[in-house]
Amino acid sequence: MTFLRNAWYPAAWSHDLGETALELQILDQMIVVFRGEGGHPKALYDACPHRFAPLSRGKLRDGRIICGYHGLEFDGTGRCVRNPHGNGKTVSALQVRSFPVAERYGMIWVWMGHESLDGSHPLPELPLFDDPELTWVYGQLNVRVNYELVTDNLLDLTHVEFLHPFLASPGNSARTHYHCEQTGDEVRSVYTIKEEPVTGLFQLLWPDAPATANMVADIVWQAPARLSLKTSMGQGESPAAHDPQLVVMHLLVPQGEEATRYFWAAGRNSAKDSENVSAMLKQGTQNAFEFEDEPMIAAVRSRMRSNDLIAHKPAILPFDEGAVRARRIVTRMLDEERAKHAAI
Amino acid sequence: MTFLRNAWYPAAWSHDLGETALELQILDQMIVVFRGEGGHPKALYDACPHRFAPLSRGKLRDGRIICGYHGLEFDGTGRCVRNPHGNGKTVSALQVRSFPVAERYGMIWVWMGHESLDGSHPLPELPLFDDPELTWVYGQLNVRVNYELVTDNLLDLTHVEFLHPFLASPGNSARTHYHCEQTGDEVRSVYTIKEEPVTGLFQLLWPDAPATANMVADIVWQAPARLSLKTSMGQGESPAAHDPQLVVMHLLVPQGEEATRYFWAAGRNSAKDSENVSAMLKQGTQNAFEFEDEPMIAAVRSRMRSNDLIAHKPAILPFDEGAVRARRIVTRMLDEERAKHAAI
Amino acid sequence: MTFLRNAWYPAAWSHDLGETALELQILDQMIVVFRGEGGHPKALYDACPHRFAPLSRGKLRDGRIICGYHGLEFDGTGRCVRNPHGNGKTVSALQVRSFPVAERYGMIWVWMGHESLDGSHPLPELPLFDDPELTWVYGQLNVRVNYELVTDNLLDLTHVEFLHPFLASPGNSARTHYHCEQTGDEVRSVYTIKEEPVTGLFQLLWPDAPATANMVADIVWQAPARLSLKTSMGQGESPAAHDPQLVVMHLLVPQGEEATRYFWAAGRNSAKDSENVSAMLKQGTQNAFEFEDEPMIAAVRSRMRSNDLIAHKPAILPFDEGAVRARRIVTRMLDEERAKHAAI
Repeated sequence: MTFLRNAWYPAAWSHDLGETALELQILDQMIVVFRGEGGHPKALYDACPHRFAPLSRGKLRDGRIICGYHGLEFDGTGRCVRNPHGNGKTVSALQVRSFPVAERYGMIWVWMGHESLDGSHPLPELPLFDDPELTWVYGQLNVRVNYELVTDNLLDLTHVEFLHPFLASPGNSARTHYHCEQTGDEVRSVYTIKEEPVTGLFQLLWPDAPATANMVADIVWQAPARLSLKTSMGQGESPAAHDPQLVVMHLLVPQGEEATRYFWAAGRNSAKDSENVSAMLKQGTQNAFEFEDEPMIAAVRSRMRSNDLIAHKPAILPFDEGAVRARRIVTRMLDEERAKHAAI
Repeated sequence: MTFLRNAWYPAAWSHDLGETALELQILDQMIVVFRGEGGHPKALYDACPHRFAPLSRGKLRDGRIICGYHGLEFDGTGRCVRNPHGNGKTVSALQVRSFPVAERYGMIWVWMGHESLDGSHPLPELPLFDDPELTWVYGQLNVRVNYELVTDNLLDLTHVEFLHPFLASPGNSARTHYHCEQTGDEVRSVYTIKEEPVTGLFQLLWPDAPATANMVADIVWQAPARLSLKTSMGQGESPAAHDPQLVVMHLLVPQGEEATRYFWAAGRNSAKDSENVSAMLKQGTQNAFEFEDEPMIAAVRSRMRSNDLIAHKPAILPFDEGAVRARRIVTRMLDEERAKHAAI
Repeated sequence: MTFLRNAWYPAAWSHDLGETALELQILDQMIVVFRGEGGHPKALYDACPHRFAPLSRGKLRDGRIICGYHGLEFDGTGRCVRNPHGNGKTVSALQVRSFPVAERYGMIWVWMGHESLDGSHPLPELPLFDDPELTWVYGQLNVRVNYELVTDNLLDLTHVEFLHPFLASPGNSARTHYHCEQTGDEVRSVYTIKEEPVTGLFQLLWPDAPATANMVADIVWQAPARLSLKTSMGQGESPAAHDPQLVVMHLLVPQGEEATRYFWAAGRNSAKDSENVSAMLKQGTQNAFEFEDEPMIAAVRSRMRSNDLIAHKPAILPFDEGAVRARRIVTRMLDEERAKHAAI
C-alpha cells in the first residue's frame, strides 16, 4: 500500500499560517510552509541543502526563511538569496526543492505529485466552503493510523449510535435506511431516519424544535480522502432549504503509513451568530473525533497485521458498501498512478 | 524459541473477572474473557469479525458481549446473535473464534492449543490450592522479559540472600544444602538450612519463635511455567505438619516473546485470621517481585542477545541444576509439539 | 559506518568515580568502571558470566565488585575470587573480560581496541589540561546522534552567530576570516575576527575590556573525536600570552551508532578564583550544548537517512573544510583498522 501522490493535500488552515513557519509531514515528506513575499504561501522541502537543518526551525524575514543553523537565506522558490559568511558567495547547490501551493477555501494546499502534472490537476471542488448561508468552526487532530482506516470510519455512520451516544438515540440503527451510490469516482452514502428524536446537537440549531423529525445524513467522498457530510432535520419528506443543517468537512492527509493529519470544519445555517453554539460545536466535534473515533480506529488497527482491510477478509455488511467502494477506487487510482509514472 | 501451545494458561483470578470484560494477551494472541450466561467464563479472540474492533471495548449484557463500534452482539461461543442494523440479518462470517475455558483453583484457565487436543489435556494439578489448612493472598504483575528467564530466577533461590536481603540472613548461602531431582517432567529443588535465624517473615507466622530453626524451601516446577514453593521453619530434623509454613504459587503466562504475565498466590497455615499479616504478606510479596526480581531479570535480559540462556554459555554452578533441567524439558516438549502439529 | 576501536576513550571524569561503580556504554559495549585495590580504576565487561546480571548493579568491597544477583565476587582483573555458595568452589568459566584502563588529565580512559595493540597506542596528548595557567570547570551530556555529526558541528564555528546568539554579535559571520590546515592526521581551523565587540562571556574574563578587540578561535581536532578550542581576545595583531583566554575541550565517545557521550571542560586564564565566573561558565556552557547544539544536531539527523553526511551530497561551503577533512581521516583510519584486524 502507498499514497496517491498526484493530488492537492491540505497543509494548514489559512488562519493558522501566520508569522512563523510550520513544519509538516505529508506523504512521508517533511515540508516547511510559510508566507513568502506579499503574504503568499510557500512550501519547501524542510531541510537546508547545506547541512540539512530543518528550515522550519529558522526565522522569517521579509518573506524569506533564514536557516537557524548557519544563517543561509532562501526565498519562496527555494533559491538561496543570501550567504552571510565570508565573501557571501552562494553556490547553485544551495537550492531547496519547492512544492506548488495554493490558498483556497480558507486552507493552504500543497501539490505533492509530479511537477509536470501540476497544471492538469485543478484544486478540489468544495463548494460548501463558499456557501454564504454557512458559518464555520475549524479544528484538526493527529490520528495514529493510516488514512484509509479513517475513511472507513467516516463512510460508515452506523457506528454513531454505539460510539457517539450523545449524537444519536437508542435503537436509531434499526430505524435507519441506508443508500449508497457511486458517480464516477465519487461515493455517496445517504442515511435516512424517519421520526427520529431531535438530538441535543440539533436542538442547539433549532429553537422550538418538535420532539421528533426526519433526519438525513448525506456524505460524499472524493479521492484520496475528502469527505463532506450534510446532516439536516426537518418535518418534510425530504430536506428543505430552511431546515437546520450541519455540514462537516473531513480532509485527511496521510503523514505516513501509520499517521494521518485530520482537518475538519463544521458549518451551520442557523444560530449563526451564537458564540455559545460555535464554542460548543467546536469543542464537541473535536472531542468526538479525539476521544471516541481516534481510540477506536487505533484499536481496530491493533488487531490488523496491515492497513489492507480487505486482505483481512472482514465480514461485509450492507452498510459497508461506501467504504468498500472507496477502497476499490483508491486501489485503482494507485495502479493508474504507478503506470503513469512508469511512462513519464 | 517459541511457546508451548498445548497447555492451559491462567487468564485471571476468578475474583478479578466481574461485570466487565478483560483484554488479555496470551502467546501473542489477543483474547477477551468475560462471564457468559450463568456466570460461566468465556474466552473469545478479541476482535469483532466485522471491522476488528476489540470486543473487550464493548459492553456485557445478559452474558453476551456487544461490540462498542457497531453494536453487533456475540454469545459465549462467538456466534453473532444480534445485528442491530437495518433488517437485522446476521451472516455466517460473523463468527468469532472461541477458546476452551475452565474455572478452577480460583482462576480462569484458557486452553491455547489445538482444539482436537482439548479433551486429552486435563487441567494442571495444583492441590495446594485446595488445602483447607491454608489461607491465601493473591497478586499479579507484568514482567518485561520472556517467561523462561522468570523460571530461571524462581528455580534458583540462592539469589535470595543477595537480591532480597529482608528474606534471608547474611551468610545464608554458605550454609544452604541444595538438592535437585527430576520425576518425569517435574523438577524439584530443595534447599535445607540448619539453625537459620528465624526471618522477620516467619516471625509473623510463628509467635514465640526461637532465635534459630531449621528451614526447608521446596520448589516444584511443571511445564510450561507453574511453580509451587513450600517454605517451612521448625525445630525437627524435617518439616512437621504443625510447623509454620508459607506456600507461594507462581503461574507464568507468556504474553509474547518479551513479556510475561505473572500470577502469584501466597498461602499460610498460621496467623490465618490476621488481616495485618495478610496485608503485609500481600504487599511484601508484590514488592519483592516488582522492585527486586523484575528489574534484575530485565537487567539480565539487557545483557543477552536472545532469550536462549544456554546459547550464551553461562558458567553453570551446582545450584543451577533445576533451571537447566526445566529448560531442557521445555525444549524437548516444544520439539514434540512441533512434530505432533506437523502430523495433525 | 562503524567505530574506531583501536583508541583510548574517556569513560568518566576522575572526580565522578567514587565509591560506586559506573555503568557505561562505549562502542556498543556495556562496561562497568570502578576503583579497585589501591583506588586504581578498573574496567570490566558489565555482565556476570554466571547469569549475566550487570555487575554495575552490585556492591563494591575492598576494591572488589560483588554481583547483586548471586553474590559472586570479582577482582579488578575480572577473576572470580569468591563464590559464597555451598562448597565455595569457583570455576574457570567465572572470568569477566577486562579492559585496559588509565587515569590521566583528570579522566578515566578505557582502551577499546585489540589487546595486543594496547602498548603501541599511547594515551592522547592533551597538554592544555596540564597548563598551570588554567582553571577548569567540567561537564558532560548525552547526545542522541552519531559522534561524527557532533564533530561536524564543532569543526564549524560559523554557526555560533545563529545558534548561540549570546556568544557572538550580529554580522559576525561576514567579518570572520576562516583558515583550515591539516598536519598529519590533525585538523586545525582558525577563525579570525578583527575589532569584534567584546562578548558578554569575555567581559567576565576581562575587567575594563575595551568596546572591541581582535578575536581568534583556534580549534584542533584529533581522531576519533577529541577537540580543543582556544578562544582569545586581545588588542594585538595576534594573540598574546596575557590576553584573556578561554579553552574548551570536547571529548566525544560513541556509545552506539546513534548515541554519543560528550565530555567537556572549560579552562580560563583570568578571573581564576571567581566562584561566580566558574558557576556561570559551567552552567552557560552546559546550557549551550544541551539546549542549542544538541536539539539542532538531532534535527539535522532527522533529515538524513544515515550518518554518512557526504553520501547525502551536502552543498559544501568554504568553512566546511575542517569537517570534511576530519570525516576523510576517520574513513581512512577505519579502512586501515579493518585491514589490520584482518591481518591479526
